[in-house]
Amino acid sequence: MTRLNVLDSSFLIAENRETPMHTGGVSLYSYPKGVDKRKFLNGLKEILLAGTDLRPMFNQRLSNNLLSKANLTFSWEQDQDFDIEYHIRHSALPRPGRYRELFALISRLHSTLLDRNRPLWEMHLIEGLAGNQFATYLKTHHCMLDGVAAMHLTDSMLSASNRGRVNQSPLSLEAWEHYKKKNLATRKAVSASSSDIKSLADKLTEQIGSGKNLAQAVMKYANVWLGGNPALNAPWHAVPRSIISSEVTGSRRFVAQSWPYQRIRAAGRALGGTLNDAVLAMCAGGLRRYLLQSGALPNKPLKAMVPISLRVEGDLESSNAVGFIVANLATHLEDPGERFTTIRESMLAGKELYSGLSAGEAELFTQIAMSPMVISKLLSLEKALPAFNLVISNVPGPKKKMYWNGARLDGIYPASIVVHGQSLNITLVSYGDQLDFGIIACRRSLPSIQRLLDCLEDTLSEMEEFAGLV
Amino acid sequence: MTRLNVLDSSFLIAENRETPMHTGGVSLYSYPKGVDKRKFLNGLKEILLAGTDLRPMFNQRLSNNLLSKANLTFSWEQDQDFDIEYHIRHSALPRPGRYRELFALISRLHSTLLDRNRPLWEMHLIEGLAGNQFATYLKTHHCMLDGVAAMHLTDSMLSASNRGRVNQSPLSLEAWEHYKKKNLATRKAVSASSSDIKSLADKLTEQIGSGKNLAQAVMKYANVWLGGNPALNAPWHAVPRSIISSEVTGSRRFVAQSWPYQRIRAAGRALGGTLNDAVLAMCAGGLRRYLLQSGALPNKPLKAMVPISLRVEGDLESSNAVGFIVANLATHLEDPGERFTTIRESMLAGKELYSGLSAGEAELFTQIAMSPMVISKLLSLEKALPAFNLVISNVPGPKKKMYWNGARLDGIYPASIVVHGQSLNITLVSYGDQLDFGIIACRRSLPSIQRLLDCLEDTLSEMEEFAGLV
Repeated sequence: MTRLNVLDSSFLIAENRETPMHTGGVSLYSYPKGVDKRKFLNGLKEILLAGTDLRPMFNQRLSNNLLSKANLTFSWEQDQDFDIEYHIRHSALPRPGRYRELFALISRLHSTLLDRNRPLWEMHLIEGLAGNQFATYLKTHHCMLDGVAAMHLTDSMLSASNRGRVNQSPLSLEAWEHYKKKNLATRKAVSASSSDIKSLADKLTEQIGSGKNLAQAVMKYANVWLGGNPALNAPWHAVPRSIISSEVTGSRRFVAQSWPYQRIRAAGRALGGTLNDAVLAMCAGGLRRYLLQSGALPNKPLKAMVPISLRVEGDLESSNAVGFIVANLATHLEDPGERFTTIRESMLAGKELYSGLSAGEAELFTQIAMSPMVISKLLSLEKALPAFNLVISNVPGPKKKMYWNGARLDGIYPASIVVHGQSLNITLVSYGDQLDFGIIACRRSLPSIQRLLDCLEDTLSEMEEFAGLV
Repeated sequence: MTRLNVLDSSFLIAENRETPMHTGGVSLYSYPKGVDKRKFLNGLKEILLAGTDLRPMFNQRLSNNLLSKANLTFSWEQDQDFDIEYHIRHSALPRPGRYRELFALISRLHSTLLDRNRPLWEMHLIEGLAGNQFATYLKTHHCMLDGVAAMHLTDSMLSASNRGRVNQSPLSLEAWEHYKKKNLATRKAVSASSSDIKSLADKLTEQIGSGKNLAQAVMKYANVWLGGNPALNAPWHAVPRSIISSEVTGSRRFVAQSWPYQRIRAAGRALGGTLNDAVLAMCAGGLRRYLLQSGALPNKPLKAMVPISLRVEGDLESSNAVGFIVANLATHLEDPGERFTTIRESMLAGKELYSGLSAGEAELFTQIAMSPMVISKLLSLEKALPAFNLVISNVPGPKKKMYWNGARLDGIYPASIVVHGQSLNITLVSYGDQLDFGIIACRRSLPSIQRLLDCLEDTLSEMEEFAGLV
C-alpha cells in the first residue's frame, strides 16, 4: 500500500462528473513504408497486451477503504483482478477519417470518467485516419502522472531511429527500469509533500519557521493586493469574468494543431522575449480574437496560470512536481507590442519570485499559494471565485523525430483538464522542430472552439508582421 | 416543467458511477442493394440531425433545482442550449469489423454515464461492420423510456416495406404525433403513481382502504414466507448467493445473438408451456451450464425477476409501466423436464397473483411490492440482500421484417441495466421470425460472459432432444 501525497490526492478529491481529473495524450504516427497496416497495428497491440509485470500504478487500483470512500486519504494497492484487455482498446474513425473525426472521438473519450475500481488509465489504438496515419490516445488520471511524467512514458516506447524496435510493453516495469537506467540517474525526489493533510500542516509550521526565503515569497504575493508590484500577478487577484469563467458541464471539445518552433521563437526574439513569452502572446492574442468574435471579451485582462516544472533533474518517481506563475495575458490591449511587453513583464516578476527558493522551498511555496484552490474546489467556490482564467502549459517533449517500432511520431497533442471557472485549457508539447498545441474546452461553455486554431494562426502572423519579420 | 413520478425518479435516485440507469438498443441493418454506403449513412445522419421540434424529453433536461440536487424530486425543463450534434454520434469499428468488435464498442459505450446537464440520450450510427451491415446504438435513461416505449420509438422510424421512406427525424414531435395517430388511439394512462414520495404514501392509504383485491395480493406474498404456496416466489425470499449476486463495478460486457422464434416456441409447446416458459427454461439451463463451468453454481435455485407490461393498450405517454413476477429458475435441477415444470409453475403462480387486479391496482401492487427495492437501493443494501438474482425481460418487437428508409432491420438487441447484487441482465426482443437476445453483465463479476451464448444454444438443443423434437 502506497499512500498518495496531498497534491496527488487533491485530483481525486476535486473530481466529479462535471470535472474529471484525467489528462490525455493524442499521438499521431505514420505507418512505416510498405507495411500491411492492419498487421502492423495488431503487432503493436500484441506488444501492449503482453505486459504482465507493469510499472507501479499501471496495475494498481485505489484501495477501497473507509477513508478513501469518504474522499479523505487514498492509497494504491495491487489490482488482484487486473485485466489488461480492459485498458488496451482498439478504436476506429468513421470515414472520411479526417482530423475532424479524430477530434470528435477524442472529445467523447475525454468526456468520460475513469473507472475507480481499476488502474486509472486507458490506451486507445485508433485506426481509420486518412492518408498513412494512425493515432493513439492515452488517458491517465492526474493523480498518477503529470505532464512531464507522461512524456517520459511516451519517450520510453520510442526510438530515435526508424530501425529501432521495443518489443517489451512500454508499460512494463522492465521497460521502465531500462529507460531510467539509460536516460537519467535515479535520485529520490526532494519532496516537501507529506502523506496526509494533518502532517502537511505540521510540515508547514516546521519549515516556515526556518524558511526566510519562503516567508519573503509569501509576503511578495500579499503585497500584490496592496498594489506593491504592478507586474506581479497573484491567484484570485483581479481575475475578470468571461464565458471562460463559467460553470462547466461534463462534455468536452478537443482540437489540436502544430506550429513550427522556429516561427514562434523568431517572433519572440524579435519582440525581445523568450519562446515561452511568444507562446503566451500567441494564446493571448488568439483568445482576444476568439472572445471578440463571440462578443465576450472582458474589459480587464485575462490571467493565465503557467505551470513551471519543479522536478529535480533525475526525478522520475514523483507523480506531480509543479509550481506556477500567474501571467497577465493583456487581452484588453489592442496593440500587439504592448500586449507582448505586459505578458513578458508579468512572467519575469513571477520567475523572480521563485528564483530565491530552493527546490524544496519552491514546492512548499506552491502548496501554500495553491492550498486555497484545493479548498475552493472542495467547496465549489471556483465558479464565484476563480484563481485565474485558464491554464496554459508548455511541456518539453522529444527534441528529435522519434519512431515507435518503425512508425514515425508526427505529433503529440495533450488534452488536459478544465474545472469550474476555467472552461478552457491550452497545453502544448515541443517535439522536434514543432510545437504541438492541444486545446480542451467545456463543450457547452465555449462555442465552436475550433475557431481558436485560426485565431492563433492569425495572431502569430500579426506578431511576425509587427516585428517586421514578413 | 413536468414532475417525474416516483418510479421514473427512482432510476435517477439509484444511479451512481457503478450502476448507471440507462438502457441501450443495438439495431443491425443491411444496406439496400447497390447504394453508396457512405452516402446512405450520411443521409440517415442528416435526417437525424435535422430534428428541431423534438418529442418531449428528447430536448428536455432535468431541472437543476435544489430538490433535484439533493436527489429528492426531479422535473423536466426545456434545454435552452440544446445541441443535437452532441446527441447524434458517428462511430466506427476497427477491422475486421466482426460482431466481436461491435460488442466491444457497445460494451464501452454502455459503461459510461449520460450527461445530466443535457437531454438523457445518445444515438450512435456505427459503420465498419463486415459484410453489408451497419448498426445503431440508442442509449436512453430508464427514467425517460422503458423497453416498450423504446420499442415504439424504433417502430416509428421504420416501414414495413423496403420502399418506405421517413424523411422527418424519428425523434421529432411531428413523427411521433403521426405515429400515434396511425397506430394507436391515444388514451391517457391509468396511473396510480403520484408526483412525489409523500403523496404516494397518501395514495397508498387511500387506495388500500378501498382495495380488497390489492390487500389479498399483498397477503399472498406475505404467505410465501409462511410456506403457504410453494410455487409462488416473492422478492427477497430464498435468493441464493452466487457470482451473479456480487457488487458490480461500472464496466460492462455486452453480447447478443438471435434464435428462431419457431424453435423456441416448438420446444415450449412440446414441454407443455408457453413461449415465455421456454425462454426462461433456456436462460435457466444456460445459466446452470455457465455457472457450472465457472465452478460457481449455488445449491439453491436462482430467482429471476420477469417484468410484465402493465401498459394499458394505447398508452404511449407513460415512461415506465411494468409489474413483475418472480420466477424460480430451478437451476439446481439437472433434469430438463423437472426444471421446465418448476419454472412453469412459478410463472403460473405469479400470473394468478395479478389476475384478480385491475390495471390501476396492478400498478399500485407493483409499487408496494417493489418499494423495499427502491429503499434498499438507496441504502446500498442490495449487495447483502438482493431481491432476486437477475432480470429476464421479454419485450415484444415488430412482427414483420421492417426497413429504415430501405435498409433492412436484421435484429434488435437490448442492453439493459445491472445493479449491485444482480450483475447480469438478459433482455430479449421478438422481431419477425426471431428472438433477439441482448445480454449485459458487469465485466468484472462475470468472467467471459460470451460463453453464455453457447450455453443457451446447448440448452435449447437439450430441450429439443428431451421433448423428442430432434
